[in-house]
Amino acid sequence: MLPFSQFDADGRLRHLITLEGLSGEQIRELLDRAQTHLRRPGEPPARSRALADVTVANIFTEPSTRTRSSFELAARRLGADVLNLEIQLSSRVKGETVLDTIYTLQSMAVDVFVVRDAEPGVGQYVAEHVAEHVSVLSAGEAHLSHPTQGLLDALTILQYKGGFRDLVVAVVGDVRHSRVARSAHQVFTALEVGELRLVAPDALMPDPGEMPGARRCATLEEGIAHADVIMMLRIQKERMAQAAIPDAHDYFARWGLNKQRLKLARPEAIVMHPGPMNREVEIASDVADGPHSVIRQQVTNGVAVRMAVLETVIASRHQRRGGR
Amino acid sequence: MLPFSQFDADGRLRHLITLEGLSGEQIRELLDRAQTHLRRPGEPPARSRALADVTVANIFTEPSTRTRSSFELAARRLGADVLNLEIQLSSRVKGETVLDTIYTLQSMAVDVFVVRDAEPGVGQYVAEHVAEHVSVLSAGEAHLSHPTQGLLDALTILQYKGGFRDLVVAVVGDVRHSRVARSAHQVFTALEVGELRLVAPDALMPDPGEMPGARRCATLEEGIAHADVIMMLRIQKERMAQAAIPDAHDYFARWGLNKQRLKLARPEAIVMHPGPMNREVEIASDVADGPHSVIRQQVTNGVAVRMAVLETVIASRHQRRGGR
Amino acid sequence: MLPFSQFDADGRLRHLITLEGLSGEQIRELLDRAQTHLRRPGEPPARSRALADVTVANIFTEPSTRTRSSFELAARRLGADVLNLEIQLSSRVKGETVLDTIYTLQSMAVDVFVVRDAEPGVGQYVAEHVAEHVSVLSAGEAHLSHPTQGLLDALTILQYKGGFRDLVVAVVGDVRHSRVARSAHQVFTALEVGELRLVAPDALMPDPGEMPGARRCATLEEGIAHADVIMMLRIQKERMAQAAIPDAHDYFARWGLNKQRLKLARPEAIVMHPGPMNREVEIASDVADGPHSVIRQQVTNGVAVRMAVLETVIASRHQRRGGR
Repeated sequence: MLPFSQFDADGRLRHLITLEGLSGEQIRELLDRAQTHLRRPGEPPARSRALADVTVANIFTEPSTRTRSSFELAARRLGADVLNLEIQLSSRVKGETVLDTIYTLQSMAVDVFVVRDAEPGVGQYVAEHVAEHVSVLSAGEAHLSHPTQGLLDALTILQYKGGFRDLVVAVVGDVRHSRVARSAHQVFTALEVGELRLVAPDALMPDPGEMPGARRCATLEEGIAHADVIMMLRIQKERMAQAAIPDAHDYFARWGLNKQRLKLARPEAIVMHPGPMNREVEIASDVADGPHSVIRQQVTNGVAVRMAVLETVIASRHQRRGGR
Repeated sequence: MLPFSQFDADGRLRHLITLEGLSGEQIRELLDRAQTHLRRPGEPPARSRALADVTVANIFTEPSTRTRSSFELAARRLGADVLNLEIQLSSRVKGETVLDTIYTLQSMAVDVFVVRDAEPGVGQYVAEHVAEHVSVLSAGEAHLSHPTQGLLDALTILQYKGGFRDLVVAVVGDVRHSRVARSAHQVFTALEVGELRLVAPDALMPDPGEMPGARRCATLEEGIAHADVIMMLRIQKERMAQAAIPDAHDYFARWGLNKQRLKLARPEAIVMHPGPMNREVEIASDVADGPHSVIRQQVTNGVAVRMAVLETVIASRHQRRGGR
Repeated sequence: MLPFSQFDADGRLRHLITLEGLSGEQIRELLDRAQTHLRRPGEPPARSRALADVTVANIFTEPSTRTRSSFELAARRLGADVLNLEIQLSSRVKGETVLDTIYTLQSMAVDVFVVRDAEPGVGQYVAEHVAEHVSVLSAGEAHLSHPTQGLLDALTILQYKGGFRDLVVAVVGDVRHSRVARSAHQVFTALEVGELRLVAPDALMPDPGEMPGARRCATLEEGIAHADVIMMLRIQKERMAQAAIPDAHDYFARWGLNKQRLKLARPEAIVMHPGPMNREVEIASDVADGPHSVIRQQVTNGVAVRMAVLETVIASRHQRRGGR
């Protein structure tokens, strides 16, 4: 078997399991396409029939409101049929293997699998085995990858900052266990962000060598100083203990982004969060809802990005089939 | 902040959290509109594309088959996209607040939230915070309010009785804990029902002062004598104990509507129940399925009423936006 | 009440609870219609608006990925609205009876009920009580019946073998507890299959007298010798014990279909399985994925067959109504 590639023989994007390996140009094309799907708040969302013949299966192990709904609306607003399935591919379901579940759905003419699974490798494994006309999109893979999140983060920065090269972007919090941070690192590296900072207590910093090219900052104050973009990450209670931080209150005191600290960043800095937020833990409520916050725009961009990705992989299929 | 209003600045219905405050005229308009959505049994249901650009999120804490399905079909038959979400807004989900969940969905261009939550106040709280183009509809709020149920009950009476002013309407059973009874009281007061009777054992009667204008009856016999409309309420086992009624058998003996007792009402009386029914507890099976029963028509009317409410709040949005 | 019939007064199929009583001609009509819905792999699936006015309720007690998804896609590709409900009809839900649940949905203009329930008789019971314009389809009934599975199995054989009369068909495994086997027996009897063999350990063979006309084989070797079609059945652990087989390993050794044994069948034999498969228990992986396997085609055929059944029962309704 050839080494796994997300691209088809003609170099067109067929799967999206990771942002690793996507060029800046390829990412910019996705962002450009996503922008065509943005509308003003309160206006009817963008719609088309581009996926009118397509069936998308959302396979989530947990009922993830946020990402599942985003993929579901993206697919339906392009005219696709959507099946929502709550199954854990990585464990055997009723003795059925991952591949049997996938082959079954593929045999019902499912064209796109959107997969979130807690275990690493499931998305790629599925992508390696589906038929040539089928695409697999990751909706979050363990701590490793969340490619559409990376794209929506990039789109948000592009909207507010117009570009990437002159920017200082700080990713703050539990970087070590974050798929959001890993996808951010990949997308910002490809887009040649001016300076990428990883800001975390030592225990929550990735292993040395991981996320090359980024500057590591041991305090929040150093990390966000003169930053243009601050991406706060969700912290889980069990991770605080790992960093010898006794509780949420203490985490907030040391690593929470509040109004005072935000003044260290550039005056026109934007504040991002992938959600769901722990208010008053990693971020103060008045920052989350304040003038620097672009958190709700990120969610809006998420639907647009997922529409762009769905269109792109389906277009590659049409071309593989020969000429539509 | 202004005191909460379900109406927009031009007095058009924007949210529906309660029937309190709706005029008889406003209610009649909704009922008139609902009637345009009724078809004969077996005929294809009414359909339009009035909500073709609209996304409706059904947020139910439990998988409520009946009301959730009714709202889902109402929205889809008007061409809307529907997201079904099983989340309890009143408790934090993964540490996310009610409003963050709502803002997230709103940022995905959800236009209407249909909310059922066990805790009082959630619907209004959401309605107070959503963007101007967004509407919130209650699908049942604690023991307080179930406005679309009130409307469908009124529509059913209108269909069978042609009006409200000369009618005696008896609401029978656990009135104290019933959102159905409260919404019925509001809608019948606005529509100036001739006589509204609350018929319940003392312990299940609402507090004195609540539901003003209604006549309170201490026995079923007194309550349904010469009634034109009998609305039976669902009784829960734990409530029987509260009323010193040992069991379902005994409840049926004292408070159940059977054929014999039904003879006390007007000969052409109609019998209603919001469902799900406890047969042989609050209502005898031969009454539930008998010639006086309009219980299935209530369900049919529920879809029509919900279509009318959806159309109305979306129309008000179009006008707020200026002129569609 | 007349004895239950799946056919309307004019002899048109209205319900599909069992294949018992369907003639070979009626089955062939369904298979012919199903074939019009087949497309080549990778091509867009067949679609029409034949059910554009129709609402289908899928009522499954468990989240059965496979059959539920198949019915859902079949209905949606014909333009129907689909409600997915996870309720167990055979037990009272919140004190509501089977019929009240059904009448409620029927009153919302649900036209077709697709029912899977663990208890026998639920499908027929529902079919006996719905309104004249409503149809009920079984999606699997206890160990008794799985009619659309029987049809898809027949369609698969027709595709690969061109007919039935000269074929030897072996049904292998836990025949005793299998609804798949019972529906297979009915469909193959109606289609006059050359020879039908039941191949099972004694304890898993149906009672004497059941499945008349079939030849019973006490060993796998005898059962599949010179067979044209081998239908493997799923085995459950608790059934092995019943047959005094200590474990899955032992079951595979005695009753599992492997490459070696497959050589006993005709060289062009096809291997079928209703799924989900227990690989290396009832079937070797290299057989399941090998050149004789038509297992994925069965899944594809399942959607086509369900589309055909939906169209057929809706067409009968149109004619009952008079003349569409």
